[in-house]
Amino acid sequence: MTIQEALKTYREKIFAMQALGHAMGVLHYDGATVAPVESAEGRGKTLGYLSGCAYEIETGKELSEAAKYLNEHKEELNAQDRREIEVFLRESEFTASIPQAEYVAYVELLNKADAVWHKAKQDSDFASFAPIVKEIFETNVRFAKYYKPDQAPYDTQLSRYERGLTMEKTDAFFNALKERIVPLLKRVMEKPQVDDSFLWGKCYPIEAQRKFSDYLMEVITIDRDRCAIGETEHPFTTNFNKKDVRITTHYHEETPVYSMYSVIHEGGHALYELHSADELEGTVLSGGVSMSIHESQSRFMENLIGRSRPFIELIFPKMQELFPEQLAGVTAEQMYLAVNKAEPSLIRTEADELTYALHVLVRYEIEKGLFDGSIVPEELPQVWNAKYKEYLGIDVPDDKRGVLQDSHWSGGNVGYFPSYALGSAYGAQMLAKMKETVDVDGAVRSGDLRPITGWLEEHIWKFGGLYDPIELLERAVGAPFDPKYFTDYLEKKFTEIYKL
Amino acid sequence: MTIQEALKTYREKIFAMQALGHAMGVLHYDGATVAPVESAEGRGKTLGYLSGCAYEIETGKELSEAAKYLNEHKEELNAQDRREIEVFLRESEFTASIPQAEYVAYVELLNKADAVWHKAKQDSDFASFAPIVKEIFETNVRFAKYYKPDQAPYDTQLSRYERGLTMEKTDAFFNALKERIVPLLKRVMEKPQVDDSFLWGKCYPIEAQRKFSDYLMEVITIDRDRCAIGETEHPFTTNFNKKDVRITTHYHEETPVYSMYSVIHEGGHALYELHSADELEGTVLSGGVSMSIHESQSRFMENLIGRSRPFIELIFPKMQELFPEQLAGVTAEQMYLAVNKAEPSLIRTEADELTYALHVLVRYEIEKGLFDGSIVPEELPQVWNAKYKEYLGIDVPDDKRGVLQDSHWSGGNVGYFPSYALGSAYGAQMLAKMKETVDVDGAVRSGDLRPITGWLEEHIWKFGGLYDPIELLERAVGAPFDPKYFTDYLEKKFTEIYKL
Repeated sequence: MTIQEALKTYREKIFAMQALGHAMGVLHYDGATVAPVESAEGRGKTLGYLSGCAYEIETGKELSEAAKYLNEHKEELNAQDRREIEVFLRESEFTASIPQAEYVAYVELLNKADAVWHKAKQDSDFASFAPIVKEIFETNVRFAKYYKPDQAPYDTQLSRYERGLTMEKTDAFFNALKERIVPLLKRVMEKPQVDDSFLWGKCYPIEAQRKFSDYLMEVITIDRDRCAIGETEHPFTTNFNKKDVRITTHYHEETPVYSMYSVIHEGGHALYELHSADELEGTVLSGGVSMSIHESQSRFMENLIGRSRPFIELIFPKMQELFPEQLAGVTAEQMYLAVNKAEPSLIRTEADELTYALHVLVRYEIEKGLFDGSIVPEELPQVWNAKYKEYLGIDVPDDKRGVLQDSHWSGGNVGYFPSYALGSAYGAQMLAKMKETVDVDGAVRSGDLRPITGWLEEHIWKFGGLYDPIELLERAVGAPFDPKYFTDYLEKKFTEIYKL
Repeated sequence: MTIQEALKTYREKIFAMQALGHAMGVLHYDGATVAPVESAEGRGKTLGYLSGCAYEIETGKELSEAAKYLNEHKEELNAQDRREIEVFLRESEFTASIPQAEYVAYVELLNKADAVWHKAKQDSDFASFAPIVKEIFETNVRFAKYYKPDQAPYDTQLSRYERGLTMEKTDAFFNALKERIVPLLKRVMEKPQVDDSFLWGKCYPIEAQRKFSDYLMEVITIDRDRCAIGETEHPFTTNFNKKDVRITTHYHEETPVYSMYSVIHEGGHALYELHSADELEGTVLSGGVSMSIHESQSRFMENLIGRSRPFIELIFPKMQELFPEQLAGVTAEQMYLAVNKAEPSLIRTEADELTYALHVLVRYEIEKGLFDGSIVPEELPQVWNAKYKEYLGIDVPDDKRGVLQDSHWSGGNVGYFPSYALGSAYGAQMLAKMKETVDVDGAVRSGDLRPITGWLEEHIWKFGGLYDPIELLERAVGAPFDPKYFTDYLEKKFTEIYKL
């Protein structure tokens, strides 16, 4: 074998895996947005077949021999190729540690789980979901042990989403947040609440909300020729290549804010995928490097930009144009206060910036317990409700608004949740750094967000998977990660809003 | 090898091919309905890869040896297995006659062609489409020669859509139609035209039209849990299995009839796919047997039912509910006349029942000429326009409303067009037979169409590919195919409408 031969084989096989991934991605997207309900069974079989093909390529002799050969000759490769091989081998080592039949069975389980979860949530019936969630967590524990037999399985899982992350680091991170957020929330709750009544109890027609989505995507600079928007139960973003990204939202007639912040949040994910450097396209390095960095981008757009005063001032005229009767007599300032109303609530995706991390903390502690066996799946509703009482001080009326609310576990995204809180904190540190050179508020006020997106592209987006996530963050901000930027930001913002 | 082993291999490989077909089908559907415009390139690469995989399985040693072994021992198989092997070998012989690289290149060409055609149609720019249409026809001629070197390529192609069909038979069929339709149309044109002005020049909001689609799908007994509706440029139906069928439509604010008859037409296709017998599911025999039988079902619903007086009387109250201002003062009888207005027109898909076959005839003669070289692709606009003048007596103002109007050629559906006219004629013969035992008008009037759909299921739908198309038709009607049922139907209907 020569370097050229090995690279050729490697690239051909990566292309094949990406083609299969593309097909599976479109099947998932279609299933979550427009497919008829009885399509799930057929889709499951097809996904099982395709994932088996992908497994065979990823763990097959041709690709692994080529990749190993290249790794042994890495001093002869350029920096990008070297990094590609390193990242590929790391991923494929995980896959290869799982027997093929178990791998395919897990893909099929997840396809089934999605339908079971949807129905369980609809009926608020945890019992029907319990055996599935049990099987999903058991499978993840087993897979983690196959891969790293000597490591705590949840550490393995955390590090798969965010390389280098451990329970120890995550505990420390959440402790730093709790220390500042819990007393801050307490002070907020002692103050008079802001008025957001105009956002509720009226009909905000879906047709007008669809137009609002188009407008918001334009404002945050999304190229619609490369990014479509679909409608689904639980909003998500997916991408097949950098010219084909999809965001989704869910419209609720009773308020425009759910969809509004879904669109901006998912739009932040989309921007990251759309702006990987061209030279990474088609390689394992294209697209977002980790879920925490991804969430840092989505929550940057959603909160640091989307819930800022200049942004609300910018978009409020459009809101009044689309919803003239619903917003009659309302001012931009009232809207700014309303979208920043902070209070303990039941639903994570609807939570305000201040309480959001506490919702994530509940999930993190539960996942930890499910992984080490200190929590059993059958007890999840009780444990969930107790933690909501403890951290947020509220009673959960039913499992639909409790333990069944998120799609992550049924989707196999076990170990994902901490990414949301980490991402929020990463984003705040990026914003502080960005403000050293960019007039962020001025850009938003002008309606031209390109100085902001330009900074993100230059410091985060274009790098794709070239650096591990924490290294990427630290290169962008020129300093070690520090959650205090996030807690400082929260304290400043909510002190002003609630006149603490 | 034993029969059991061969069957096991055969079934495994068919499953794999169907899984790949499912993935490719969803990629196509997604591309035609919701994907962003720049997604075409990436989709083309993925479709190229997947079609290569399907080609390798279909023509590979394992499957062909198993199928050949089973064919050699066919007396030991049950009737369904025997038929399966026969149909599979026929198909795979065609595929295997094409070199893999050419096969994959054609799939990629078609993916590219779709985007080129869309743009060419939009800009009414035939020149940009000419090289593509040339390559598509040349490829089809080449493929037909690979498969049947000693047969006229267009005969080969016609027979691929409708087994046993030849130019000789098609010529005879169209002559029989021309003989009756041309003088009938002449008589119609001498009479005062019916008034359909209320269907035009007003705004029929798309939201209301979407509700109307839901209603129409319900009326024609489509199970929405197994059939979704999407929006696209050029409506089509696709199916991935009998629990996952998709129809599409295109809404035009200026009239409700385009989408209305798209939905009923595509709904007819969908019903056929949804009602294949369960025991055929997952085999090569599941779903419609040929495009002519398929069009017989779609045009049955669209015209024989959907443009009948009882059907219009049934649905008119819903139309008035959804479009109260637009249809103020209009009666059901006026609507019946309006949707049956017959006159030469430019666009096939908007043509009335009487002139429709003439639109198809133009395309048939052009395809024949492109296959035998008597027409060159560069001349297509001139040839097209001359034939519209000859058969329909009208001038084509631009290629957008002329040779660029249909998606068939860019989609590789070369040889498909005659199916529409044949299907119309098949359907009329089925209706005559059905009326011997079913009170068709009474069923429509009652709003419960199940006596009609029940007959179609029992005599057509459930059989999937168990019989060749003409045999299926003749078993259903108990007589040889005869186009006079269609021409008699047209004469009776339009004599009454136009008081000839």
